[in-house]
Amino acid sequence: MATAAPPLKDELDIVIPTIRNLDFLEMWRPFFEPYHLIIVQDGDPTKTIKVPEGFDYELYNRNDINKILGPKSSCISFKDSACRCFGYMVSKKKYIFTIDDDCFINALQQHIKNLLCPSTPLFFNTLYDPFREGADFVRGYPFSLREGVPTAVSHGLWMNIPDYDAPTQLVKPLERNTRYVDAVLTIPKGTLFPMCGMNLAFDRDLIGPAMYFGLMGDGQPIGRYDDMWAGWCIKVICDHLGLGVKTGLPYIWHSKASNPFVNLKKEYNGIFWQEEIIPFFQSATLSKDSTSVQKCYIELAKQVREKLGKIDPYFVKLADAMETWIQAWDELNPPKAN
Amino acid sequence: MATAAPPLKDELDIVIPTIRNLDFLEMWRPFFEPYHLIIVQDGDPTKTIKVPEGFDYELYNRNDINKILGPKSSCISFKDSACRCFGYMVSKKKYIFTIDDDCFINALQQHIKNLLCPSTPLFFNTLYDPFREGADFVRGYPFSLREGVPTAVSHGLWMNIPDYDAPTQLVKPLERNTRYVDAVLTIPKGTLFPMCGMNLAFDRDLIGPAMYFGLMGDGQPIGRYDDMWAGWCIKVICDHLGLGVKTGLPYIWHSKASNPFVNLKKEYNGIFWQEEIIPFFQSATLSKDSTSVQKCYIELAKQVREKLGKIDPYFVKLADAMETWIQAWDELNPPKAN
Repeated sequence: MATAAPPLKDELDIVIPTIRNLDFLEMWRPFFEPYHLIIVQDGDPTKTIKVPEGFDYELYNRNDINKILGPKSSCISFKDSACRCFGYMVSKKKYIFTIDDDCFINALQQHIKNLLCPSTPLFFNTLYDPFREGADFVRGYPFSLREGVPTAVSHGLWMNIPDYDAPTQLVKPLERNTRYVDAVLTIPKGTLFPMCGMNLAFDRDLIGPAMYFGLMGDGQPIGRYDDMWAGWCIKVICDHLGLGVKTGLPYIWHSKASNPFVNLKKEYNGIFWQEEIIPFFQSATLSKDSTSVQKCYIELAKQVREKLGKIDPYFVKLADAMETWIQAWDELNPPKAN
Repeated sequence: MATAAPPLKDELDIVIPTIRNLDFLEMWRPFFEPYHLIIVQDGDPTKTIKVPEGFDYELYNRNDINKILGPKSSCISFKDSACRCFGYMVSKKKYIFTIDDDCFINALQQHIKNLLCPSTPLFFNTLYDPFREGADFVRGYPFSLREGVPTAVSHGLWMNIPDYDAPTQLVKPLERNTRYVDAVLTIPKGTLFPMCGMNLAFDRDLIGPAMYFGLMGDGQPIGRYDDMWAGWCIKVICDHLGLGVKTGLPYIWHSKASNPFVNLKKEYNGIFWQEEIIPFFQSATLSKDSTSVQKCYIELAKQVREKLGKIDPYFVKLADAMETWIQAWDELNPPKAN
C-alpha cells in the first residue's frame, strides 16, 4: 500500500518520543522509510535505543538536548512524552507528524490531506469536512466563508485503547474504542478541545513555536497534561491568527493501555487545576499587536504567570519555561533571509 | 425491527409537511403506526391527501390553519415546507420529530436517544458524543462539565441526495452522499450551523416556541431558508439558555433531488442576505431578563426588525410574524396549571 511518490517527502519530519527499541518501525517500513525521523529518547541517556536498519533518522537523548540548548534545556521536560517537542524545535521542515511508539497504522496520508486543505472554523458544516471527496458545503453555508482558512493542526484519533484519564481508566478498564467514525471536522472558533499527542500533525511554519508541550514529568508536580497544555495554547492562538484545527481521521491503533495507578499520580494535580485553567483559556484574548505565533505565545505566557500563578507556583515556572522555549526556538530557527 | 414498546409513544408527535399522498408511510408502517401524526397539507386545500389506513393522524390544510389562527394565520407560510411549524404549535406533546415526505428510514429511535441524553456545548469531546455506548469523555475533559446540559434539538443527516443549495446542485448534479459517519456530536456554544428541516427532532417543552420556520414561499421574496432561519434562532437561544443542539445520526434516505432552477429562484435573495444575517446572529446577545424561550424570541424579533430591517422591508414583516407566532403559540398553549 506504499505510494510510489511519498507525499511531502522533503517537507515533513516524523517525531517519535521513546524509551524503547523501535522494533515497530519494521512492521511499517514502507510508510516510515521515505521520511526523515527525529527520535527523542526519554529517560536514561546511557541506554541504547535500537532503530532497525535502513531508516533515515537523527536521535537525541537527554545529554544531546542539554548540549544543544545549554541552560535553556530547562524548558524541555524529562521522563514524560512532553520531551517530544524538542524534535519540533530542531526540525527544519514545514510539516511535523508525531506519533507514540505504541501506535501503529499508516496515518500520514490522511494527515497530509487534512493539512493541505482549508479549515472552516467560522461556521459548522453538517456534512463535516466540505473539502473531502464526495462532500461540500451544505445549503445555508455562507458563500463568503467557503474559502476557509489555512489548516495549522490535524488531530488524529485512536482505535482500541481510548485516551481516557486515570479515573475513567479505573472505572472502565475494559472499554475499547471500536467505533470508526469516517469524518474530519474543524473545531469551531472559540471552542477548546483536548488535544492528544499520540497521533498529531501540524504545519511548523504556521504554528510550530506554540506547539510547546510544557514542563511535565521528572521534577514537576504534574504529568500527562503536556499535549493538553499545547492544545489549549495552540487553539487560542489559531483562533486569534485565523488558522484552523481539524480533528477526526486518521485513526491509529493504540495497542497498550498505560497503568491507571501511575497515571492517577501524574494527573491528580491537573484534574484539579484544569477546572481553573479551562476558564482561563476560554476567556483569554490576545492583543492586535500579537501578529506572529511568537508574539502571541509570549503574551500568553505573561497571562499564565499573572492569572494562573495564583493557583500554584508551578505556573510561574511554566510561564518562564514558555518564554525560554521561544528564545531557544528563535536561536535554533533564525528568521529566513528572503 | 419495530420494538415491542415504541419509545416515548405518548410523548411524541410526528409532523409531516406534504403536498402528496402519503403512500410512503406504508413502507414504514411498523415505525410510524404507534405514533400520532400531524400532517400539514401545503398548497391547494381542496386537494385530498390520502393517508394509508390504520394510522392515527390529524391533517390540517390551509383552510383549517386560517380557521384556527384567524388573522394570526399570516405567520404561517404557504407553498413552502415552512408550513410544518403549524404542526409544532398545535401539538400537545413534549417531543416533535419532523420529516419530509420524500425521506425514508427509521430515524426516530436515534433521535430519541439524542434528546434523552445530555449535550456538551462548552468543550469539544474528540470521541464525539460521550454518552453513547462504548464512548466517554477523553483525558483532559474538565470534570465539572461532564454533566452536560439538556438537549433541546437533534439534527439528523441524509444519505443519497445531499442538502445542497441551488448553485452547488447545478455544479455537482451527480454528487451523492454515500459516507455514513457513525457519530453524534454537540454543536459547540457560540457556533452556528445550517439546520435542515428534513430530519429533525426537538423537545417542544424546551425550545418549541423558537422553532418557527418564518415567512417563506407564496407571496414572499424568499424560500428554502425556513429551516435555516429557525436554526439560527434556536441556536442563539439555546446558547443563551444553556441548552444543547446535537447533529449527526440518525440518517434518513433522501430519494429525490429538488429542481435546482426552481430552487435558485427561491434562494437567490437568501444567498445575498445570509452574508449579513450570519454576522447578525453571530454577534446577537440576549439580556439576562430573557429567561424563557418566548421572552428570548420576542427580544430576537426586535433585534431582527432593528438590524436586519435595513437590508429589506421583508425583515420588518418577518419580525412582525415572529411576534404574531409567539402570540398564537401562547393562545394555543396556555401556561399549564400546576
